Amino acid sequence: MKLKMLYSFLKTDIDEIEKELNLAIESDTSLLKDASLHLLQAGGKRIRPVFVLLAAKAGDYDIHVIKNVAVALELIHMASLVHDDVIDDAELRRGRTTIKAQWDNQVAMYTGDYMFARALDYMTIIEKPAAHQILSNAIVELCIGEIAQIEDKYRFDQNLRDYLRRIKRKTALLIAVSCQLGAIAGNTPEKIHTSLYRFGYYVGMAYQITDDILDFTSSEEELGKPAGGDLSQGNITLPVLYALKDPQLNKRIRRVHGDMPRAEMELLIQDIIATDAISKSYDMSQQYLKKALKELDALPQSRAKKSLRDIALFIGKRKY
Amino acid sequence: MKLKMLYSFLKTDIDEIEKELNLAIESDTSLLKDASLHLLQAGGKRIRPVFVLLAAKAGDYDIHVIKNVAVALELIHMASLVHDDVIDDAELRRGRTTIKAQWDNQVAMYTGDYMFARALDYMTIIEKPAAHQILSNAIVELCIGEIAQIEDKYRFDQNLRDYLRRIKRKTALLIAVSCQLGAIAGNTPEKIHTSLYRFGYYVGMAYQITDDILDFTSSEEELGKPAGGDLSQGNITLPVLYALKDPQLNKRIRRVHGDMPRAEMELLIQDIIATDAISKSYDMSQQYLKKALKELDALPQSRAKKSLRDIALFIGKRKY
Repeated sequence: MKLKMLYSFLKTDIDEIEKELNLAIESDTSLLKDASLHLLQAGGKRIRPVFVLLAAKAGDYDIHVIKNVAVALELIHMASLVHDDVIDDAELRRGRTTIKAQWDNQVAMYTGDYMFARALDYMTIIEKPAAHQILSNAIVELCIGEIAQIEDKYRFDQNLRDYLRRIKRKTALLIAVSCQLGAIAGNTPEKIHTSLYRFGYYVGMAYQITDDILDFTSSEEELGKPAGGDLSQGNITLPVLYALKDPQLNKRIRRVHGDMPRAEMELLIQDIIATDAISKSYDMSQQYLKKALKELDALPQSRAKKSLRDIALFIGKRKY
Repeated sequence: MKLKMLYSFLKTDIDEIEKELNLAIESDTSLLKDASLHLLQAGGKRIRPVFVLLAAKAGDYDIHVIKNVAVALELIHMASLVHDDVIDDAELRRGRTTIKAQWDNQVAMYTGDYMFARALDYMTIIEKPAAHQILSNAIVELCIGEIAQIEDKYRFDQNLRDYLRRIKRKTALLIAVSCQLGAIAGNTPEKIHTSLYRFGYYVGMAYQITDDILDFTSSEEELGKPAGGDLSQGNITLPVLYALKDPQLNKRIRRVHGDMPRAEMELLIQDIIATDAISKSYDMSQQYLKKALKELDALPQSRAKKSLRDIALFIGKRKY
């Protein structure tokens, strides 16, 4: 079962958004266009636009309005990916060379800025001050999350709260506001859009935890980038936090540094996988998904509600 | 005569904005706060906030509303400076080490993102869709201008139009919208805020041309960074464009590259100064200022109008 089968009734509208994304990055500056297009064509799940559309289905769904919000959210996400790759010094993203690898850090930085600015442009069609407050607040938190990730690198004494706050800022909030802004743009009552916000938040938490698990358990081919990359870059994710509770592993993990030999790192990753760190992380992801599904009770039955439910369940099982 | 003497009647409000800027960058993430504070404390003319306030004086001036626009514009400007320093690989800004020199490119990138996001946060207090459209459009153009500057480096066959379009995007538009948004937030009629937009645009063009002249004619001490930096980094500014018309200088300028010996570069700069390139650039700056002053005819007499006029005249004469 593929993810996009879960919302196939939206296909025409998703295609429309893809077309709009291509228009959004049009520019008479070829460097900017080439770099943006490079990232756009690498694909991606477009999960934020999908959430925007599905949430809007709970209200007055007008694709000509909603698509602007969907495009804005995807552009903000893409901008953060481009800037993320500069931080991570990443060479590969979605199986393709990154903008910073193909061009350089400078081009990556301004391409991100440009996508971000274009996103704001698209959002201006929504004439609801609350929507803009919600979005700008999420973006502030996103930036704080990114900086916190730099600060927290190789900080082996951090706790679960640090991790959860970081992934909330880094991932969950933007998915939460994708749902909420879709619902607000669809003129739903507050009860509905706050439920959808929480749904998105819980799904986002589960999504990032799964991502952090897959970084351990997937192959380079499946990930589109080297496996075990998080730990070797000093990112302390949930599986690492659990593994740190094992006194032996604790000592070995604390010795991780940027230039650790590949073989030693691979052995460490295998030994972490052999503990209950992965299954415990998986359990936490499931708890978040359970909470997410409960939020959907606020919504009347519909195809969109079923899709939201199916996507949440899919995220709990995803392998890539 | 100091610049700030020209709007001394606004002193209380300018102090209020300075206080608000400090609050704006407050964060529980110390890295983010330190880096932002580092830039904030380096000072700067705060010319965008001043334009916001003076423009708002043409309408209903409420400092509690206007200050949000002023803070937003200054934060956007600061964010662009931080990102600019990454591009330019600059070590000094306003006589202080840059964020990218004090920390690194990554921190500079996210500090810029954060300031930018906080700016949007401040803007959400303005519940006028047009204001947000104007601002987001200016930011898009700003990003295009920054990328164009990378593309146009060492491109010695560019013309005046390329240069003017670049400085429009890079500098003039943000000053133009500072004036316009101040006026819009002050509920002025369209005739007034478009005049103020044009005033800001012309002043911004003159301001950047003067900046480009001063890069040639000022000392390192006055600039707070090495003199002649533009040309040595391959930035083709207005004095360079005029100097390129001299066949001898043309040959020498076309040989400029990143590793040109300092002595050779200094000689070239002296020889450019010895031509009419500087005075011709100065003439163009004066033309823009003349146009700027004419736009002020649309405004009734007031202290604010006098300040706008005096600032424009000051820019025409500024030496640093």
